Amino acid sequence: MNYPNGLKKSTQKGHSQKKFSNRGMTLEEDINLANKYYLAINKAVIHKKPTPVQVVRVHYPKRSAAVVTEGYFKQASTTDYNGIYRGKYIDFEAKETKNKTAFPLANIHAHQIEHIRSVAKHGGISFVIVRFTTFHETYLLKAEHLLYYWDRQQKGGRKSIPYKAFKSHASLIPIKFQPRIAYLDLVDELYF
Amino acid sequence: MNYPNGLKKSTQKGHSQKKFSNRGMTLEEDINLANKYYLAINKAVIHKKPTPVQVVRVHYPKRSAAVVTEGYFKQASTTDYNGIYRGKYIDFEAKETKNKTAFPLANIHAHQIEHIRSVAKHGGISFVIVRFTTFHETYLLKAEHLLYYWDRQQKGGRKSIPYKAFKSHASLIPIKFQPRIAYLDLVDELYF
Repeated sequence: MNYPNGLKKSTQKGHSQKKFSNRGMTLEEDINLANKYYLAINKAVIHKKPTPVQVVRVHYPKRSAAVVTEGYFKQASTTDYNGIYRGKYIDFEAKETKNKTAFPLANIHAHQIEHIRSVAKHGGISFVIVRFTTFHETYLLKAEHLLYYWDRQQKGGRKSIPYKAFKSHASLIPIKFQPRIAYLDLVDELYF
Repeated sequence: MNYPNGLKKSTQKGHSQKKFSNRGMTLEEDINLANKYYLAINKAVIHKKPTPVQVVRVHYPKRSAAVVTEGYFKQASTTDYNGIYRGKYIDFEAKETKNKTAFPLANIHAHQIEHIRSVAKHGGISFVIVRFTTFHETYLLKAEHLLYYWDRQQKGGRKSIPYKAFKSHASLIPIKFQPRIAYLDLVDELYF
């Protein structure tokens, strides 16, 4: 099981960032930096939603902040990122995989898929960013392609999107200097 | 201090809903129900963001879910609600006050104000929903008015928005049957 990213980050950040500089950054870190940059230059307002935690018990110490002493990670019902870009609603999910031949659809929950479907239906910009960590390749796959593979799976088709499909249907996000993952460049090309 | 809503909800929900039916619903509950309804009838895709919890310690029991054993509520850097409506990005904050004469600006954090300002600048639909609980009145106040009072406060002006200003600059959200707080009716009037 993969625990939500908020957690991974706090345990891995320290050494991965120091030792390998940009090479070791997680996709989430890359996207957060890109969003920070886009916000700073007034290009877009896109934020990551907090990891949902079901708070069960809280302790209130005197004179200090409340402490959650029992909480559970909940499954996200929407995607991780959303906001506004060039006046349009933008909404996406980001996933990494170590798999070399395909992106397993089990990485995305049914609720998230239905959210992506709704957003696309309402005219929003909706996609998924997938990183094949072994190849250091990050792709932007439009909602329509993701939904095609998801729906095929529901009818008994394969449970993953082949790496080859990314080569032909998705767009490779080039690595730049600032921001490193300039995914909005691709959004310009694909949606405007 | 007001703790984040996620918490209030879990302690108040049980009796307030049962005993007083709709009368006792919090603004958050009302808005969540409205959003659920809007999603079900395919009118809009608007969700509440999870309450941000800084996870510090996690326990992994064998064969069961991870438990957050130490976490802290973080201040939200954006607003609570956002999504897409009629193809446009929509983003808002919702606050209740027991105050009878004014809405204290301390209820909204500087980060949230700057977020609202950015969204408005990028052409998004941005506002705040304020409920005066004593009067059972819920208002929609457009970003421009909220920012006017905020900026005036920054220059040494009053630290609240007078109730009278809501009467003249905001729009009273009528109570309906389904959804009870049909705030998108007002959005239609004010933004389209």
